[in-house]
Amino acid sequence: MNVIALDAMGGDNAPFEIVKGAVESLKNNKSDITILLVGIENKIEAELAKYTYDKTRMKVVGASEVIGTDEVPTVAIKNKKDSSIVVGLTLVKEGKAKAFVSAGNTGALLTGATVIVGRIKGIERPALGTLIPNKKGFYFLMDAGANVDCKPSYLVQFAKMGAIYVENMQNIKNPRVGIVNIGVEREKGNALTKEAHELLAQQTNIHFVGNVEARDLPSDVADVIVCDGFVGNVILKYTEGFGTAILSLVKEELMSSTLSKIGALLASKAFKNIKRRFDYSDVGGAPFLGLKSLVVKAHGSAKARDIVGAINQCSLFIESDIINKIQND
Amino acid sequence: MNVIALDAMGGDNAPFEIVKGAVESLKNNKSDITILLVGIENKIEAELAKYTYDKTRMKVVGASEVIGTDEVPTVAIKNKKDSSIVVGLTLVKEGKAKAFVSAGNTGALLTGATVIVGRIKGIERPALGTLIPNKKGFYFLMDAGANVDCKPSYLVQFAKMGAIYVENMQNIKNPRVGIVNIGVEREKGNALTKEAHELLAQQTNIHFVGNVEARDLPSDVADVIVCDGFVGNVILKYTEGFGTAILSLVKEELMSSTLSKIGALLASKAFKNIKRRFDYSDVGGAPFLGLKSLVVKAHGSAKARDIVGAINQCSLFIESDIINKIQND
Repeated sequence: MNVIALDAMGGDNAPFEIVKGAVESLKNNKSDITILLVGIENKIEAELAKYTYDKTRMKVVGASEVIGTDEVPTVAIKNKKDSSIVVGLTLVKEGKAKAFVSAGNTGALLTGATVIVGRIKGIERPALGTLIPNKKGFYFLMDAGANVDCKPSYLVQFAKMGAIYVENMQNIKNPRVGIVNIGVEREKGNALTKEAHELLAQQTNIHFVGNVEARDLPSDVADVIVCDGFVGNVILKYTEGFGTAILSLVKEELMSSTLSKIGALLASKAFKNIKRRFDYSDVGGAPFLGLKSLVVKAHGSAKARDIVGAINQCSLFIESDIINKIQND
Repeated sequence: MNVIALDAMGGDNAPFEIVKGAVESLKNNKSDITILLVGIENKIEAELAKYTYDKTRMKVVGASEVIGTDEVPTVAIKNKKDSSIVVGLTLVKEGKAKAFVSAGNTGALLTGATVIVGRIKGIERPALGTLIPNKKGFYFLMDAGANVDCKPSYLVQFAKMGAIYVENMQNIKNPRVGIVNIGVEREKGNALTKEAHELLAQQTNIHFVGNVEARDLPSDVADVIVCDGFVGNVILKYTEGFGTAILSLVKEELMSSTLSKIGALLASKAFKNIKRRFDYSDVGGAPFLGLKSLVVKAHGSAKARDIVGAINQCSLFIESDIINKIQND
């Protein structure tokens, strides 16, 4: 029985969408999971009362505090011991749950996870992995923002953890690993990427394909792409912001004349397909890899469907025994 | 009389489009400019023979060698003393031209410019500025790739030079200056951006608006946005690659059914407008700021219209006396 703890209070749509996602998850999930809903009990119970579900597989674990999105992570983790994030992470630490999912304060979740759940022995820095859409599907970006100042050796570990994750979760054998750089030539880069490139090229257990220029990120040149968390955060957020900007520009232009409005109407199915291509919901959240158990960051705007995706992701992660594979790598 | 040197051999479409651009520039340019076409004489003369133009304002300066796009910059600059890039930069150094435009090897141009033209006294590192499209128009990104490892003080100089450039070239009074960061809060960032933020906040002669998250880059939050050259290169190239990928995805989807094809036809003017919004041609090339004279990097795929844009940019730059303004800042 895989027990998954879920922060019922995290994100813009908590607790409504989170609890709804948990209920849907139990209905759909083929594997044998139990969900621990962590948060303010009466609020969670009020939501649960709206549904019928298997009560033996859904428990509420009380946590009287909530960490807000604007709180300073280190301070919040230290002061709010009875927050849903701290209580959820503690369930994982104590072995009462095998994974924790939260759509709450990212910094607090990452800080808390490192302190409470702890790193796998030998892992210098856990990293946040995230799937970014490309022309073919997605690539896995490590690190998307957990470590803004990195040493070259961190990037090698990001590459190895990323490859194990993608191989097991996306079922890609011997995934291609690239490093974000300013040119494709080996000697290109800043101090970090030049040294990281050399170290990556020496690894025998990953399929390193070399430097990836940012212009080629959308072209399916690698399955795992490593970079420091500052650059990764820029890529992640720019993908979101620039993608939204272009699509809103297209919409604005299409609405500017009657002819183009009719055109847009006729092409509406095509536009829906494009939107679907950028839809993350089914793939779950961003795993924080390198910890002794799985911690998943769901998007702050997560809805029920995203929560279902994240729970499925946890199930597959646990069944694939990824923690042990990282540990023994 | 403003003399502008132009690398006739640089870029994918040299010398044809470069020479064509030079001829068109003389026709259109209202100000009193003379162009020095630098490169292999018989090739340039053969192109020039196709046009009628004011021969008193167009001269050919011989340079027997060409630096290829794949050559290692430092080696090429050292060994190819009679290359169009080295000869063109030397014309600027010797005061025979006030600016140099090249669509050739970026690394060679930047390395050569720093060595041959030289830095303005007090400028620690010259930086490559580039206009990136946002929802309203463009913002000026400094540094787009010249300095991949930066100190905080460099970013302050990038900010000042960028503000002077935008104020004079784009006619924006008191331009807003932001810094690329992983969060809007002052304390966010890596070691570089945290310290650079503090230094920028202390400046009295720039209008510093604080951190800019990558998701807000397209939202017209600042006129000048500074970052190290590694991050800037990622933003520049990702803008190109991701923009192209989305538009090709839209095209692909629209071509997938008869109905959407008709839709696309009806909306074709709207799509043309979108393309125009992302068109850089009129704004010229990327200025390399912080040198004793102006050096402009035109896009490798530059066509005649881009060259006209770059020449106009040089005229305005010279007339605005930007070098002196940077020097006296």
